[in-house]
Amino acid sequence: MSGSPGKVDVSRTGGVENPPVIILIEPQLGDNIGKAARAMLNCGLVELRLVRPRDGWPNEKAVANASGADIVIENTRIFEREEDALADLNRIYVTTARTRDAVKPVFTPRGLGPEMRANIARNEKVGVMFGPERTGVRNEHVAMADAVVTVPLNPGFTSLNLAQAVLLIGYEWWQAGVEVPDYQMMLNDSFPATRDEVERMFVHMEEELDESGFFRVAEKRPAMMRNIRNIFNRVGITHQEVQTIRGMLVALRGGKHKPRT
Amino acid sequence: MSGSPGKVDVSRTGGVENPPVIILIEPQLGDNIGKAARAMLNCGLVELRLVRPRDGWPNEKAVANASGADIVIENTRIFEREEDALADLNRIYVTTARTRDAVKPVFTPRGLGPEMRANIARNEKVGVMFGPERTGVRNEHVAMADAVVTVPLNPGFTSLNLAQAVLLIGYEWWQAGVEVPDYQMMLNDSFPATRDEVERMFVHMEEELDESGFFRVAEKRPAMMRNIRNIFNRVGITHQEVQTIRGMLVALRGGKHKPRT
Repeated sequence: MSGSPGKVDVSRTGGVENPPVIILIEPQLGDNIGKAARAMLNCGLVELRLVRPRDGWPNEKAVANASGADIVIENTRIFEREEDALADLNRIYVTTARTRDAVKPVFTPRGLGPEMRANIARNEKVGVMFGPERTGVRNEHVAMADAVVTVPLNPGFTSLNLAQAVLLIGYEWWQAGVEVPDYQMMLNDSFPATRDEVERMFVHMEEELDESGFFRVAEKRPAMMRNIRNIFNRVGITHQEVQTIRGMLVALRGGKHKPRT
Repeated sequence: MSGSPGKVDVSRTGGVENPPVIILIEPQLGDNIGKAARAMLNCGLVELRLVRPRDGWPNEKAVANASGADIVIENTRIFEREEDALADLNRIYVTTARTRDAVKPVFTPRGLGPEMRANIARNEKVGVMFGPERTGVRNEHVAMADAVVTVPLNPGFTSLNLAQAVLLIGYEWWQAGVEVPDYQMMLNDSFPATRDEVERMFVHMEEELDESGFFRVAEKRPAMMRNIRNIFNRVGITHQEVQTIRGMLVALRGGKHKPRT
């Protein structure tokens, strides 16, 4: 064993004191270890354990590929035996691409995210195992785990590399703990215009369109203005944008607007 | 422009005829292009467009790093101008790490998946833009898009590489179209034992435990058996496993079981 975990820096883990641990079984390439470390830190995971890394430890390529995720590399722990790497964990998940003969619960990463959050909330220590790059985990590793995680991807082509697999599990862990709306109209420093501002813009617009002969068929005018209102109303138009549009109207009309209202 | 899109092979796209297109603006490294192609195909995305790739095209490193995602590389199209790369698209999303001054709707990848599925269902052609590796997209690219996609990750460390960003968007696209339960008890070829089989196992077990002096305090026996039942009941025990356990009981008792029932 080498490295010491120390107390978790919760500014790196989204405030979580005991986030899931990532365990790599017999990782082959330092590049992949480093990239996995980097993927982890993007997702607020900081504790990495390696069981019998092929090229030993420390590993220059791992450091180089961690690209700033030094906190993960520096605290990486090395183990000779799986049992020792897993000893303190209460919940162990193992990623595998192929379902196996074992009778085992199977999670998707989407399902695992909330499950791990629930585990952590009960102060359980959680680990997720990943196997060697080309061959994956063996049956004995599946037997050590409480459940399997399988990433549902294109059956016509499934070939994630190690860091990508770590990223997807980490991503789902992170997503399960954040509350970012799936969709927002991002107004940044702007603020939506008031209804009155917008209404006066439409009145201005209708007047200009009228005077420029845009409404060739009188009966269609209300419907056309409704359509035009819909164009601008759905974009959450801001105060500044109202000014911009009114300025455009003035310019288009050669600066001649004499507002009736 | 080079390459020809041809008709999409829907066995590679999960059955979707017109999946979202991935557009890389000024990609720098062939390695990253290849890895992005591989990430795409994992998620059922097959159409890649490059705008002013730094090292031109074709690119040996892109081929090497695509690791089997040849169908993507072979059909990659090259453009000198963004406008041409985007011309046939109805919906354009742009990934960016930083929110900007533009007033723009913002999706998370989680929100974008179903949105793109809805777009595609209406036969709209969809594209997602990604910027150059170190610098990301510029404001002009944000202006070309209908909405921005920002991946909510660790504010304490956010540094996805290009292929990982493509993977996360592609992963959410794929997830939004599949129906894999978040959790399953995977029984594989086994079948859960019948209630009767399980009950007879418990009776057998209780008898053996009794005869071996396990129940030292008589009043606690029902509660202890309840706990024991709970251990085995929650694992979805199979017929084969019942046999295994009963065989264990017999062996432990030195082969002496004389069943009372």
